Amino acid sequence: MTESSKAPLDAERLARAALSRLMEPQDAAGLALVQLAGATDALRIASGQVKAGPGLEQEITELLADTGAAASWAGLAAALKRWQPRLPDIAPERDLATMARLGGRLIIPSDELWPAQLADLGIQEPLCLWWRGQEQPLPPAAKAIALVGSRDSTSYGASVTGDLAYSLAQRGFTVVSGGAYGIDAHAHRAALAGGSSTVPTIAVMAGGVDRFYPSGNEDLLRAVANQGAVLAEVPPGSAPTRYRFLQRNRLIAALSAVTVVVEARWRSGALNTAHHAETLGRAVGAVPGSVHSANSAGCHRLLREGGAVCVTDAAEVAELAGSSGSALPEPPHTQPAVQDGLTLEDLILLDALPLRSTTSVEKLSSVAGLSPESVRAGLGRLGLLGLAVWERGGWKRGKG
Amino acid sequence: MTESSKAPLDAERLARAALSRLMEPQDAAGLALVQLAGATDALRIASGQVKAGPGLEQEITELLADTGAAASWAGLAAALKRWQPRLPDIAPERDLATMARLGGRLIIPSDELWPAQLADLGIQEPLCLWWRGQEQPLPPAAKAIALVGSRDSTSYGASVTGDLAYSLAQRGFTVVSGGAYGIDAHAHRAALAGGSSTVPTIAVMAGGVDRFYPSGNEDLLRAVANQGAVLAEVPPGSAPTRYRFLQRNRLIAALSAVTVVVEARWRSGALNTAHHAETLGRAVGAVPGSVHSANSAGCHRLLREGGAVCVTDAAEVAELAGSSGSALPEPPHTQPAVQDGLTLEDLILLDALPLRSTTSVEKLSSVAGLSPESVRAGLGRLGLLGLAVWERGGWKRGKG
Repeated sequence: MTESSKAPLDAERLARAALSRLMEPQDAAGLALVQLAGATDALRIASGQVKAGPGLEQEITELLADTGAAASWAGLAAALKRWQPRLPDIAPERDLATMARLGGRLIIPSDELWPAQLADLGIQEPLCLWWRGQEQPLPPAAKAIALVGSRDSTSYGASVTGDLAYSLAQRGFTVVSGGAYGIDAHAHRAALAGGSSTVPTIAVMAGGVDRFYPSGNEDLLRAVANQGAVLAEVPPGSAPTRYRFLQRNRLIAALSAVTVVVEARWRSGALNTAHHAETLGRAVGAVPGSVHSANSAGCHRLLREGGAVCVTDAAEVAELAGSSGSALPEPPHTQPAVQDGLTLEDLILLDALPLRSTTSVEKLSSVAGLSPESVRAGLGRLGLLGLAVWERGGWKRGKG
Repeated sequence: MTESSKAPLDAERLARAALSRLMEPQDAAGLALVQLAGATDALRIASGQVKAGPGLEQEITELLADTGAAASWAGLAAALKRWQPRLPDIAPERDLATMARLGGRLIIPSDELWPAQLADLGIQEPLCLWWRGQEQPLPPAAKAIALVGSRDSTSYGASVTGDLAYSLAQRGFTVVSGGAYGIDAHAHRAALAGGSSTVPTIAVMAGGVDRFYPSGNEDLLRAVANQGAVLAEVPPGSAPTRYRFLQRNRLIAALSAVTVVVEARWRSGALNTAHHAETLGRAVGAVPGSVHSANSAGCHRLLREGGAVCVTDAAEVAELAGSSGSALPEPPHTQPAVQDGLTLEDLILLDALPLRSTTSVEKLSSVAGLSPESVRAGLGRLGLLGLAVWERGGWKRGKG
């Protein structure tokens, strides 16, 4: 509560708090209105206190045409009618007091704590973020990885998510996810266990952060709030509707350098997050799995159709983030074999050397199809590597 | 035997039969010599009957520099020494008689039966093919798919290979593989079972086709020869050395429109086949699997580092071949949900409709953040889809 008292209850903050209740996330006409008129005037117009000046409606239409916003959101007149039924619900002071009571705060784009990477969303940048957790800077995109996937994860998905999140957190990355059952929960839990940064994990919620939803994740989300951050663009008391889930996904993608889909069905909200990441020019990773698992079909779809990169461990994810993290790099998968550096001729000669019996240079020359001089020279090189040995008057294969 | 008697035992054929015993596959100087001097003169030079004319050595060197062949194979003088020890083994008439006795034949590039797609190998095109099986045209590349992978396949790899090979064969594709244990054997076996083309499967061997190797696959390879084809570029009696396995892989890749790696370790011969396919500009597919399976690590490596496309069923492989084959296309993975075509506004309204209780237009207007007019219009549209129903004086969600 002490930290939130630092934030002045200025008009801009109160206006954005109020507007976030009036408008659904990504209400294109509303966001354009705020961009063109500023939040405080936008609230006066939205609440009918003042009438929009001549030309403003036209400016909104032009701005939205430029940004390709959905036509159904466009007109200001329609928007005013849309906002009107919610005017009685506006209570920004109460909402800010609720957040302070919960040890949280509201941040707006002019705040120092505002994550700069959200500006990549352009007109889709949220009006504000309702934030439960310690008052400390969120990580830059380069140090945040989104791990997302199905609610009905398999034991395979759970195990891979746990390994990835723990190992990424150990490397100093923040793990971003959506606080849901399944992959999300495994990601948050393992990040809390492995966390080495000040904000080990962030849950971005589709509904208000006053309630930890779903209820089965209440303890987990409380821990995320205590050690990391729980965020939403909708105000306290907002229900997590399907529409808000889809909009929330763009925030998960925008906060993170990489979005990794661990398990997803052919049609899955996690793919929506991946598409947001692609649109933002962020990297997308997909974890492969059995072709027989419906829960990997969405990942394979991303690998096949989308620009997703196949990732199988934390090192590969970190590489996508353009960083190997703070930990030591993992060892290569296997040691090179001793015969890897051989020339073609020496490889052929090695093939021709018997494993048990011994043989002569002349016989080797015929079997390998090499001149006796080449065989002698090759035996010398292979001998140095221990791949050819002289034994009982003949040559045989060595163990290297 | 009747069919092989059709092939005249001309000098060109005898020369290539002899040269294929003298030279290892891809002996760059030898292939250049044949290209520049013709097979019969090349044999006279290789066997020391005539001396190479002035300038020929230089021409060989230039040709090889142009094609980027390995330097260790380059010089003609070194090549003559390399071939000399094998001169006593040359017996082309005996080898052709052996093939005729086995119901097979030798084909050379001038034969009508020569697979045209091998010309894509350029200087690496084989001198000839020793062929066991019915005398009938091999499929063009567009109708052939290579399925390759580990010898120590898992039950997952076996099952996926079986599904792919059977289904591809049913679609009229020829399945090309290497006749080895593991993935190769599963591919040949399932292709024989599903085969609908005249050549359901082709085994390209690293050693001579007089012997079915490995011995545990003898019955399978006999069936492949009876119903399909068993091919090698090395003459009868040749041992399947490691070097020949690596060279053989280029033939598997060149015969096929697509090379699919079903299961492969981080370091695997199957990756070598995939690289040959890439070099030839052919498509490469990789089957995903568990990140915990060492036998899928090579496939994931191809997906991550190479140009491989993620493939999970025969339809996706056929698509890579630029053809859906002759069978009916598979049904889409899932049916679209009834709410898929909804506008954002209608989706928000659908979210706001209670599942059990009923509600009013005014309440919906506030919950959804839509004007009453929009709510009424939206309820009309959702009602037509059965997604909104009027019941006991109020609105609730319908089942669609």
